[in-house]
Amino acid sequence: MTKKNHTFPEEQLNRFCISVFDAMGCPATDAITATNVLLAADLRGIDSHGVARLSGYVRLWEAGRINTKPNIRLVHSTASTGTVDGDAGLGLVVAPKAMQIALEKSDAAGSGWISVTNSNHFGIAAAHAMLASAQDKIGIAMTNASPLVAPTFSVERMLGTNPMCFAIPAKKHPAVVADMATSAAANGKLEIAQREGKAIPQGWLQTHAGDPSVDAHEAKNGGALLPLGSNRDGGSHKGYAFASVVDIFSGVLSGANYGPWVPPFVSFLPLLPDMPGKGLGHFLGAMRVDGFRPLEEYYTHIDRWIARFKSAKTAEGYEKVIIPGEPETAHALYRTTHGIPLFESVVNDLEEVGKKFAITL
Amino acid sequence: MTKKNHTFPEEQLNRFCISVFDAMGCPATDAITATNVLLAADLRGIDSHGVARLSGYVRLWEAGRINTKPNIRLVHSTASTGTVDGDAGLGLVVAPKAMQIALEKSDAAGSGWISVTNSNHFGIAAAHAMLASAQDKIGIAMTNASPLVAPTFSVERMLGTNPMCFAIPAKKHPAVVADMATSAAANGKLEIAQREGKAIPQGWLQTHAGDPSVDAHEAKNGGALLPLGSNRDGGSHKGYAFASVVDIFSGVLSGANYGPWVPPFVSFLPLLPDMPGKGLGHFLGAMRVDGFRPLEEYYTHIDRWIARFKSAKTAEGYEKVIIPGEPETAHALYRTTHGIPLFESVVNDLEEVGKKFAITL
Repeated sequence: MTKKNHTFPEEQLNRFCISVFDAMGCPATDAITATNVLLAADLRGIDSHGVARLSGYVRLWEAGRINTKPNIRLVHSTASTGTVDGDAGLGLVVAPKAMQIALEKSDAAGSGWISVTNSNHFGIAAAHAMLASAQDKIGIAMTNASPLVAPTFSVERMLGTNPMCFAIPAKKHPAVVADMATSAAANGKLEIAQREGKAIPQGWLQTHAGDPSVDAHEAKNGGALLPLGSNRDGGSHKGYAFASVVDIFSGVLSGANYGPWVPPFVSFLPLLPDMPGKGLGHFLGAMRVDGFRPLEEYYTHIDRWIARFKSAKTAEGYEKVIIPGEPETAHALYRTTHGIPLFESVVNDLEEVGKKFAITL
Repeated sequence: MTKKNHTFPEEQLNRFCISVFDAMGCPATDAITATNVLLAADLRGIDSHGVARLSGYVRLWEAGRINTKPNIRLVHSTASTGTVDGDAGLGLVVAPKAMQIALEKSDAAGSGWISVTNSNHFGIAAAHAMLASAQDKIGIAMTNASPLVAPTFSVERMLGTNPMCFAIPAKKHPAVVADMATSAAANGKLEIAQREGKAIPQGWLQTHAGDPSVDAHEAKNGGALLPLGSNRDGGSHKGYAFASVVDIFSGVLSGANYGPWVPPFVSFLPLLPDMPGKGLGHFLGAMRVDGFRPLEEYYTHIDRWIARFKSAKTAEGYEKVIIPGEPETAHALYRTTHGIPLFESVVNDLEEVGKKFAITL
């Protein structure tokens, strides 16, 4: 069993990742961008999506599925909408560039909405949505992903854990950042349970036959993750619908693959035949708050909203009501100062990557 | 116990509702618009939000909370965004007018996004979002609502069942229409269980102390509806976050009330002191599909998406995987021809409303 027994200063992981992306052939600015997105996950405590995934990106590159010198370009456009072709680049690089275009459109037109085709996995959605909330805008980011989730009544893995993120700026308080897989549980939680050999809660997973299971390993035996809501009574048709919206906005609107055809993150799984699009897709949006209401008025009320919810009466045994994004903000504050703890297996994994390129961690 | 033993042709209910709105003082075009929105619910099988609510709107009007001659106007605007003041009008009238503005903005700028302040309950979200999907656009509609839902870890009713609707146009198939309360169950389902004296599934409701309950009547004893996900393990923090996004987009962005201050639909509940805004709020959006990709390409792929999901392998005992909106489309087809069945209690309620204005059902 692995334990978190190694803590690294952000700066050290930063230098290492930049060197790796550089060695893969990324231009210098892209190596920095990709590193920032990866480390945003580690800083915010989303350990499954940070440097733990670096080796996965390297393997995808080795398999010829990532272009480290992409020509990322706007291929379709109106004043407030458009589509970006990522040219098979790292999603970690493509998504921030697409969000930059959305932000520019919002400066001119009030809002900007970009669907992205021909991309790869983009890390945590919050890293992209928060580019907007840092500039008095509401940011939205979503992506489709490796098919792991079965629709309600189905036993087939048709959808990814397809996250949606909304980043909503505030003034006295940190931004409200809701970054959510549309499945009952993110795949990272399942991986932890597999590693630790622990039972998982009811409602996360079903077997290959569609029966509920608390054994995380069923995911490897043809089982599937369940949509948010877990079962029909619990509203799983809503989680399935949210995941479908993410898939359609990211894949169908952009020209990327969708549903079961979305290319898996793990490089050893083959691509399906008859793929309907290119790579996987994202959807990014930015809305200027002052496109709706004067900024100061808005900030007065979003701060009041947050204060009121923070002070909502709790059930016995609970200290306080949590604002979406609050735990991640606390993690980021702590880890920026105290460093980022990594599992030994992740450290080993990074060292293997380092050896490949003669880079020391 | 009430039974569905009365079926009315759409045309008859249509005439009746128009006459009632007319008697309340609505201009003729508004009476027609409001009736269309109400009947869209009955036709689509969302019986809780159709003519069953007519008497509720009448009581709100009698309580002086609805202005039947509102000056609905755009008070803030950019090329693709803006805010509409509903002037305390019926949400059934305000929302379609706001969506009309969003649609016009999308014609010029690719997308249009309107937050709405100073409105009232707007019926089913799908009625508004589908105005967009009828014209090669993706429609989005959400609204905040009477506080009934407790955030994760809280015992306080802080949020409405705050629905989000996405209406996504298709060609060979009907539009994909995902119209979802962000709570585990809509309040209408609870009301049915209360009326029928039946236990409700685990995960819909908690008691005043925050304990899970299967007794629908606990909602009247200080209990609260639970967010989608039902509990922390099931991902209720995500349902709470979705409801919060709806509340912030509808209330904080627009200048309407939010959180526990949202005015209740039932006229006998008092308004809270220190209200931060005006009435309740909505958020409406429209994106031109051809703002992202040529129309014909899009339709080829959305139809392929639908066909693929319809043919997904089912778990034993289930005939097929359902596309969001499919059951409602089937209801609408059937009821347009065969009429709309109403509970006897609803018929009595309509007759009482009729008496008030000397209108025969």
